[in-house]
Amino acid sequence: MHEFDLIRQIEPFAADHKDVKVGIGDDAAVTSSYAHKDVISCVDTICEGIHFKRSTLHLSDIGYKALAVNLSDIAAMGGMPRYYIVSLAMSPDWQEEEILEIYRGMNALAQHYGIILIGGDTVSSQNGLMVSVTVLGEIEKNRSLLRSSAREGDIVFVSGTLGDSRGGLELLLSRESAVPRTEQENALVGIHQRPEPQIALGQLLKESGCRIALNDISDGLSSETWELAEASNVCICLEEENIPVSEDATNLFGKQKGYEYALNGGEDFQLVGTVAKTHWPTIQSAAKEKGIRLSAIGSVEQEGSPQVLMQKNGERTVIKRAGYRHQ
Amino acid sequence: MHEFDLIRQIEPFAADHKDVKVGIGDDAAVTSSYAHKDVISCVDTICEGIHFKRSTLHLSDIGYKALAVNLSDIAAMGGMPRYYIVSLAMSPDWQEEEILEIYRGMNALAQHYGIILIGGDTVSSQNGLMVSVTVLGEIEKNRSLLRSSAREGDIVFVSGTLGDSRGGLELLLSRESAVPRTEQENALVGIHQRPEPQIALGQLLKESGCRIALNDISDGLSSETWELAEASNVCICLEEENIPVSEDATNLFGKQKGYEYALNGGEDFQLVGTVAKTHWPTIQSAAKEKGIRLSAIGSVEQEGSPQVLMQKNGERTVIKRAGYRHQ
Repeated sequence: MHEFDLIRQIEPFAADHKDVKVGIGDDAAVTSSYAHKDVISCVDTICEGIHFKRSTLHLSDIGYKALAVNLSDIAAMGGMPRYYIVSLAMSPDWQEEEILEIYRGMNALAQHYGIILIGGDTVSSQNGLMVSVTVLGEIEKNRSLLRSSAREGDIVFVSGTLGDSRGGLELLLSRESAVPRTEQENALVGIHQRPEPQIALGQLLKESGCRIALNDISDGLSSETWELAEASNVCICLEEENIPVSEDATNLFGKQKGYEYALNGGEDFQLVGTVAKTHWPTIQSAAKEKGIRLSAIGSVEQEGSPQVLMQKNGERTVIKRAGYRHQ
Repeated sequence: MHEFDLIRQIEPFAADHKDVKVGIGDDAAVTSSYAHKDVISCVDTICEGIHFKRSTLHLSDIGYKALAVNLSDIAAMGGMPRYYIVSLAMSPDWQEEEILEIYRGMNALAQHYGIILIGGDTVSSQNGLMVSVTVLGEIEKNRSLLRSSAREGDIVFVSGTLGDSRGGLELLLSRESAVPRTEQENALVGIHQRPEPQIALGQLLKESGCRIALNDISDGLSSETWELAEASNVCICLEEENIPVSEDATNLFGKQKGYEYALNGGEDFQLVGTVAKTHWPTIQSAAKEKGIRLSAIGSVEQEGSPQVLMQKNGERTVIKRAGYRHQ
């Protein structure tokens, strides 16, 4: 496939917008900037055989997810995504129609958030498919929610439930897709294949004006909480009984596995953060009003050498920074 | 290698700068924006076995080139590069020290242009190394130099000489690196391994305030001139005797090969563009003053159905949009 033909096919995904001065089809994209906003940018790459297999993700899911992981990063800063640029490296066994289907999956998610494709690059690879997505977003000046903002006395909170995505992955890896799934199983598989980036929650937290530390859960709760502890130089203590473990995962895989998936399963793309105790009730009810579940799962205990502890039945142990390692 | 360890090692490349509010180490980067500027963004990916082999590029050259191809895109818009974000996908046979050496190569080029690393992502791949670089830059509002600006009566110009990079690649592919090279051979190999993005020329052309169509030569003169013709919907006629074919390539590979490399060799990363005849002398001498060679190689003949012709001894033929295809 010639790159130029692909550009023509994906052009419909690059909607006209007054802030896009040059979109796909020139050397680089040109977009407006505003003096009262900062630019947020991030890139994430997913590789065939490592982050997905053709058996675990439909083609359109590959596109959806490659964009979703980036939107999750933008959400974790409290920002609004605006544009995306795609770089695809693909081996000769990938067909034009398959690549278009991947773009369609991205476009479905992009439309939901009003995000515009401003650039696309397609190159050959020797083996497999690699999708690298860059997302540009914006945030009011100096309002980004950083990992380094946790302070002693803060509540630690997390959104949604944890472990669903890993539960879904286990189902996908352990069974033929022809075997019919229960509703519960489908729910987990759906979360793995099409995770919902927490843009609305990121916005709500930023709008609150509170000092909030924030991180998205791409690798697992343990690993992301460690990142908060290290960036803020604090000790964080989590309470095992308050972690919102996926009920579906617990039902299907048992309590122990469910808990493991929640702690180290990864790819839930929920947000974990901290906020001062006094602000917590307001934050929690504001989220509830928008249909977003926030759970208090621990507290920031002291500043000093970074650490993450897990409390269970009054006993505390240091938790390992495990996280799901792709292969 | 744990990603976190890599981040610590590359942090020295992420210089402090007042416009970088959040650099590497959080979910996304946050940079200042200015109301009188537009944001320019582009991404390019290079893959092991396709765009380079360990035998054709040193480790630091891989990094240098992955960044350089993006800077060339920014140059072709008349923009100034400011920041870069790196996404690496690597198979287990790549070592930490090798990855650092790649970053060092990027850093060498970045320092030259005062560009700052604001994000880095490292993932596993099943096979080989893939380096995807995103560059963010800026340009005064509505001043970008587009491919679509060519008009009837324009002079077509090109910078530097063409075919050097392909000559260098041929030398690298055909010989053991242990065989000593002549100075002439080294010059070609150097241009292939460390092409110089034409940032200064892009700036000069933008500063001129003239209407200028511009494109960078990543695939080859034929293919890039076709892009100008199609984007501007014009017929372009090039004159064979005026194309600045690499003398070194001609000396080493003969006149015919030298010409082929110039037309379809690719990766010269020179700029090809068009400007009104009346402005050409000023543009050419302004470039000369900065030590940049610009050659007039043809003209824009008429608006209408896009075409690229080559004139030789009074005869004209349509040139094929060939370009070097990586494998």
